[in-house]
Amino acid sequence: MPAGELRQSESSEAEAEQWLWAQIKAEARRDAESEPALASYLYSTILSHSSLERSLSFHLGNKLCSSTLLSTLLYDLFLNTFSSDSSLRAAAVADLRAVHERDPACVSFSHCLLNYKGFLACQAHRVAHKLWIQSRRPLALALHSRIADVFAVDIHPAARIGKGVLFDHATGVVVGETAVIGNNVSILHHVTLGGTGKAGGDRHPKIGDGVLIGAGATILGNVKIGEGAKIGAGSVVLIDVPARTTAVGNPARLVGGKEKPSKHEDVPGESMDHTSFISEWSDYII
Amino acid sequence: MPAGELRQSESSEAEAEQWLWAQIKAEARRDAESEPALASYLYSTILSHSSLERSLSFHLGNKLCSSTLLSTLLYDLFLNTFSSDSSLRAAAVADLRAVHERDPACVSFSHCLLNYKGFLACQAHRVAHKLWIQSRRPLALALHSRIADVFAVDIHPAARIGKGVLFDHATGVVVGETAVIGNNVSILHHVTLGGTGKAGGDRHPKIGDGVLIGAGATILGNVKIGEGAKIGAGSVVLIDVPARTTAVGNPARLVGGKEKPSKHEDVPGESMDHTSFISEWSDYII
Amino acid sequence: MPAGELRQSESSEAEAEQWLWAQIKAEARRDAESEPALASYLYSTILSHSSLERSLSFHLGNKLCSSTLLSTLLYDLFLNTFSSDSSLRAAAVADLRAVHERDPACVSFSHCLLNYKGFLACQAHRVAHKLWIQSRRPLALALHSRIADVFAVDIHPAARIGKGVLFDHATGVVVGETAVIGNNVSILHHVTLGGTGKAGGDRHPKIGDGVLIGAGATILGNVKIGEGAKIGAGSVVLIDVPARTTAVGNPARLVGGKEKPSKHEDVPGESMDHTSFISEWSDYII
Amino acid sequence: MPAGELRQSESSEAEAEQWLWAQIKAEARRDAESEPALASYLYSTILSHSSLERSLSFHLGNKLCSSTLLSTLLYDLFLNTFSSDSSLRAAAVADLRAVHERDPACVSFSHCLLNYKGFLACQAHRVAHKLWIQSRRPLALALHSRIADVFAVDIHPAARIGKGVLFDHATGVVVGETAVIGNNVSILHHVTLGGTGKAGGDRHPKIGDGVLIGAGATILGNVKIGEGAKIGAGSVVLIDVPARTTAVGNPARLVGGKEKPSKHEDVPGESMDHTSFISEWSDYII
Amino acid sequence: MPAGELRQSESSEAEAEQWLWAQIKAEARRDAESEPALASYLYSTILSHSSLERSLSFHLGNKLCSSTLLSTLLYDLFLNTFSSDSSLRAAAVADLRAVHERDPACVSFSHCLLNYKGFLACQAHRVAHKLWIQSRRPLALALHSRIADVFAVDIHPAARIGKGVLFDHATGVVVGETAVIGNNVSILHHVTLGGTGKAGGDRHPKIGDGVLIGAGATILGNVKIGEGAKIGAGSVVLIDVPARTTAVGNPARLVGGKEKPSKHEDVPGESMDHTSFISEWSDYII
Amino acid sequence: MPAGELRQSESSEAEAEQWLWAQIKAEARRDAESEPALASYLYSTILSHSSLERSLSFHLGNKLCSSTLLSTLLYDLFLNTFSSDSSLRAAAVADLRAVHERDPACVSFSHCLLNYKGFLACQAHRVAHKLWIQSRRPLALALHSRIADVFAVDIHPAARIGKGVLFDHATGVVVGETAVIGNNVSILHHVTLGGTGKAGGDRHPKIGDGVLIGAGATILGNVKIGEGAKIGAGSVVLIDVPARTTAVGNPARLVGGKEKPSKHEDVPGESMDHTSFISEWSDYII
Repeated sequence: MPAGELRQSESSEAEAEQWLWAQIKAEARRDAESEPALASYLYSTILSHSSLERSLSFHLGNKLCSSTLLSTLLYDLFLNTFSSDSSLRAAAVADLRAVHERDPACVSFSHCLLNYKGFLACQAHRVAHKLWIQSRRPLALALHSRIADVFAVDIHPAARIGKGVLFDHATGVVVGETAVIGNNVSILHHVTLGGTGKAGGDRHPKIGDGVLIGAGATILGNVKIGEGAKIGAGSVVLIDVPARTTAVGNPARLVGGKEKPSKHEDVPGESMDHTSFISEWSDYII
Repeated sequence: MPAGELRQSESSEAEAEQWLWAQIKAEARRDAESEPALASYLYSTILSHSSLERSLSFHLGNKLCSSTLLSTLLYDLFLNTFSSDSSLRAAAVADLRAVHERDPACVSFSHCLLNYKGFLACQAHRVAHKLWIQSRRPLALALHSRIADVFAVDIHPAARIGKGVLFDHATGVVVGETAVIGNNVSILHHVTLGGTGKAGGDRHPKIGDGVLIGAGATILGNVKIGEGAKIGAGSVVLIDVPARTTAVGNPARLVGGKEKPSKHEDVPGESMDHTSFISEWSDYII
Repeated sequence: MPAGELRQSESSEAEAEQWLWAQIKAEARRDAESEPALASYLYSTILSHSSLERSLSFHLGNKLCSSTLLSTLLYDLFLNTFSSDSSLRAAAVADLRAVHERDPACVSFSHCLLNYKGFLACQAHRVAHKLWIQSRRPLALALHSRIADVFAVDIHPAARIGKGVLFDHATGVVVGETAVIGNNVSILHHVTLGGTGKAGGDRHPKIGDGVLIGAGATILGNVKIGEGAKIGAGSVVLIDVPARTTAVGNPARLVGGKEKPSKHEDVPGESMDHTSFISEWSDYII
Repeated sequence: MPAGELRQSESSEAEAEQWLWAQIKAEARRDAESEPALASYLYSTILSHSSLERSLSFHLGNKLCSSTLLSTLLYDLFLNTFSSDSSLRAAAVADLRAVHERDPACVSFSHCLLNYKGFLACQAHRVAHKLWIQSRRPLALALHSRIADVFAVDIHPAARIGKGVLFDHATGVVVGETAVIGNNVSILHHVTLGGTGKAGGDRHPKIGDGVLIGAGATILGNVKIGEGAKIGAGSVVLIDVPARTTAVGNPARLVGGKEKPSKHEDVPGESMDHTSFISEWSDYII
Repeated sequence: MPAGELRQSESSEAEAEQWLWAQIKAEARRDAESEPALASYLYSTILSHSSLERSLSFHLGNKLCSSTLLSTLLYDLFLNTFSSDSSLRAAAVADLRAVHERDPACVSFSHCLLNYKGFLACQAHRVAHKLWIQSRRPLALALHSRIADVFAVDIHPAARIGKGVLFDHATGVVVGETAVIGNNVSILHHVTLGGTGKAGGDRHPKIGDGVLIGAGATILGNVKIGEGAKIGAGSVVLIDVPARTTAVGNPARLVGGKEKPSKHEDVPGESMDHTSFISEWSDYII
Repeated sequence: MPAGELRQSESSEAEAEQWLWAQIKAEARRDAESEPALASYLYSTILSHSSLERSLSFHLGNKLCSSTLLSTLLYDLFLNTFSSDSSLRAAAVADLRAVHERDPACVSFSHCLLNYKGFLACQAHRVAHKLWIQSRRPLALALHSRIADVFAVDIHPAARIGKGVLFDHATGVVVGETAVIGNNVSILHHVTLGGTGKAGGDRHPKIGDGVLIGAGATILGNVKIGEGAKIGAGSVVLIDVPARTTAVGNPARLVGGKEKPSKHEDVPGESMDHTSFISEWSDYII
């Protein structure tokens, strides 16, 4: 991107962040007024802060701290990282929007910021990933361990994750070291993007943009899940899945068959359509 | 129920609670005597309290608190809710009995009260649900988030759950917003009662009385699992399952076939018979 | 083993422990120097301690404590148990080596000691198991409960686990009361070794030496998984699996067929080969 | 007091409490609005509570708790005691008013409620005293110990203290077992009301109504400080002091001399006049 | 002492410790039974421990810990020190007996062990002192700082303190680096044994055996307070005080006069007679 | 000061801070190497930080936090205040130097930074004072309350304190609202700079540069202690003290007499000479 466009993009990102932060504060203020028992929580996590990055750093620092990794240390680490890298802030904004748009159970942006373990684990991972690529690996791995303990979400700090990603429910998600997740992907709980053995090297799945991966799906090895593909809940996938097709079952099969798989045109990672393929799935008859 | 019967029922519920609480105290006293290292824990959680509701409120408050949601606040919230709603106390009693009867690894009522994350998550959910239907949604969702973090059990506060329910092991259970779970149901760990997409509305499973759902089963959409049905471990269920039948596999099939499925007469949610269908499951041959 | 050999074996175990501890301290020292933000953590967990058992007891005590089970009490319990039983220390050493050899994402022994929830849960389980066989059951169960809450790893204290065992990622693992796991086994996350109903007695799987169990596999009942067998990810296994064969799918089938299953000669629990069977698995075609 | 008057008095006390609580909430609301960084603190301590007794119980529970005496336990103890004894609540109200009237540094009632260690120590003492006279001595002494650790204010739980008492600054105050303090007394920091040796029995000072005791004064033995007397800062008093006289110095002398001591007519415990006697104190010449 | 006698003395010290520990456990058991709300505290601090040194180490570790000095670290430090040095244990026993004999407000040994900040500060000081003479000065000073923060008792780790010492109330006590305190001394709160300026060297008081120092007394410089001397409350002492005499006032004078001071024969540090000198103190007339 | 000089002065202050910070890190590194048990503490408080202001903010945040005022909030407040006001940093540097020069028990700058409650209370007060003059009074008072609880040092946030001030031992110090303390003053523990009654207005002492105030001295009212004056331990001062004179006793008298008091030429606040006046103090004869 030319420098001019980059600046413009950054400035519009900053505006988007401002707008979102104003929404979040308004929501929190409304909730604090209607529910005094929660007001202390809302003030400490949101309303006392001057920016999204401060609120998020505070919340993550207090969630992920332990008796041997103090909240002040983590707060400092998060705040320094978010403050110095606008792309992390932009990703957080895109992720918040993704949750808000795709999960009908999400009642507000502040609800997601405070309560969605998938969102929080992902933002903490983005910081761990930054530490990893700065070769601060022991710190990245310590943070990884805290995320795995606290949220039961286990994303290796080397894994690369795009923007606008929704980890819904998120408990039990495992993402391996060389996995890559594209933009606008939605991943349900208990999903594994795993490796294939004890050899090192590039050994984890590559998830294209707009993919939807159902609950409990297991994808193993350096396989490619094409753009806009859909992986059914509970599927076990060991080889590539073409773009805009649907793989289901254990072992996974393409809906419509290997030769002429059914194609869908939308972006399932955004539409979140988990089950429309049923009528086409000939084996699925109780 | 006529008012007279209701009073009688409440009084017998109160008696049941008294009896159970006396059992729990006797168990805890015996354990404190035999194991001084645990006595402090048993006194603080059970023996220093004058009622089951106080003990449970104390235990949940200390389990679910965080640096931004203090134990005193949660204790107060739990105690006020349990004290003012006898149906919540009766449900807790029924759940304790269910665990004790159905799980051979459960050695005592106090063992369940203190240590079963499924039991504790369910009681905390019942409080969150009560807040939800009182339109105290931000507080309900904050509580929901704590339960999901601490127990890795993610039950939306709007979900309705009957009495005598066993969440065995419980880690990884996900229950969506419009799900309904009947009485005397048993649900193993990693079970998902999930939705079908990003549209709101009634979109989660309805689980009939006496159903047994095996570990890792995934049930998606507004489907009906009939009374006394049995869902095999690891099954993926996307359409209705008739009463007293068994669905297994991914994709799930009825044991005995769609046309003339085998019927069992007992209440599998109570008998906890996970595997008797094997001999009938023709595909199941290693 | 004759007494002389036993002493020799113990002495070589002690040497192995010394060597490993020296490695761990060297790694931690190097990391503390390169990353001051982590140095406090590394000193408190490793570098301030004089032995592996002290470091491990400190770390587990601080990880597993709660407001009602204090870190000092747990530290004392762990230290006394590890100090008085060299077989527990030898098992910890074997487990550390297993992680280091088998998991390419494991960058150092100290990384495993500090951050691998599977390793930590397993060592805490070994202590709980020792308490169980000493008939200190309430304490064993309280510890079990803390492990299940903190690591989302639920291993019944009565379950017997061999040496050189790797629980990779570990979130969601459930191991029942009468399960037995052999030596050099590798078990991925979300694996269930479950029971079959509400009757007591011997009702959980027996896993032979060198077995590899893929992510999300569910094995139910008192079935025998033969030495060196391999269970594919997401499989549901309800009957015995012969040694050195591979079972995959839901319901699980033997690769190569029931009559003449393919046999592999290596120890998959050590080679961690998850996917080489694909070409042989005729059904696996997307 | 006849029952009718008692009820009337209680009812007007309840009104006074209501009025004060409304003031405190208004102050806290104003402060929360002007200072978001403090709003979380103000909501958790004051604004989320429905009564002064709940706010005070919460605040004391969180201030005085330790890792072995949990905040929930103390909160429960304080709340039960304040709820069941209106005289304790009336004393707290009188003490709050006393601080507000007598200490020019006190900017508001909420300031006193939250921040005055003398006020907080005194209210916690009133609860410990109630436990003492109920023969719950070990608990009273444990509470006494926490007050002495946290506030550096050491009042034996058997000591009797009137209403409208101001402990200003309070650090270092020591009040012995058989001491009695009247109404409307003001006591500065480092004041000792001590005993005389190792014999038991009635051995501590009796402080009349309206007395003012300056900073660092030491009064030892079962001596009587008459109503409205004034004890100068740093004085050491070992024998009785007549009403409305002033004792100063080490050893203490009566201002005006033993035979014809100067008399003042006001209530120095309320006027807080520490130094007007200087001109009369012939020895006092630098 | 010849080796044989030393062994005998150690064995009788061990017996005294055993006897005292049995008393303490019996007291705590009685209190736990009569007061369930305190039982958890009593079990965690006393009844779950197998020896006085373990109980004391646990209690001090939990009292003195902070977010940057963990309880497990302090517990380990205290336990190792008390276990390896029987003279520290003997001193603790002597101090417990001293409190019990001399303070009429002390209702039991367990009361002193748990609640007397002077006793606890002194035992923690003994450990800090041991570290100091082992040249582990930074650790000794860190411990000193925690004692000063938590108990408001500030004893320099280099100061030497005898056995059977009572620090009564203890708040505000300051003891300087080169101070020495003999056996069977009793020191009230706010007592200062201070230095004389900014030069180093031997510059603090030397307190003989059996001395009694009243509340708020200030003794400055390398002065000698002779055996069995008595220092009145609030006195300021800057020069030597002969054995078995009484110094009172600011500036301090000998009772009876400098030339022929009154002599008392008893050991005031044990008799705790604070005030019998009044009749002799001619100046003392209000 | 002209702008150019101001910049120069600031730059040399910054250099002094750099130099001191380098000293502190070197000391901490040396101590961490010699004492592994303390290394975690030294890394978290000093060695992991990039500047004195970060280290101090971290340390104060962790010392002063409570369950209702989180460490992250306080850390943020301290860091923002120290970062934006170089005069606060310069004062901290001057205070550290003052301790190091004047207190022979101070073994290093890091010892003071970590362990001197007087130093820490004073720096926290400087932040509270800044909040006070910015009209953020409720926050200033909440901080004041935490300082008084944690350090037993009670300095009203409105009090003005110069640079190079030593609060030695510090427990029990009370400084009132309108008190002013000059530069290079040394104040021992239990010193009171108190008011005179319940009227507001300017009512507390004004302490000139270079003054030394001994332990337990009480100075009351709007009196002026002249430059370089010395107040003896335990003195009670109610009227002005001329510059470079010494006041001792209760009631205080000038050494040498009121008419021709002895004059000393040095700066006692720096020389810390507590007792050289004894020979001149005619009354001082035991």
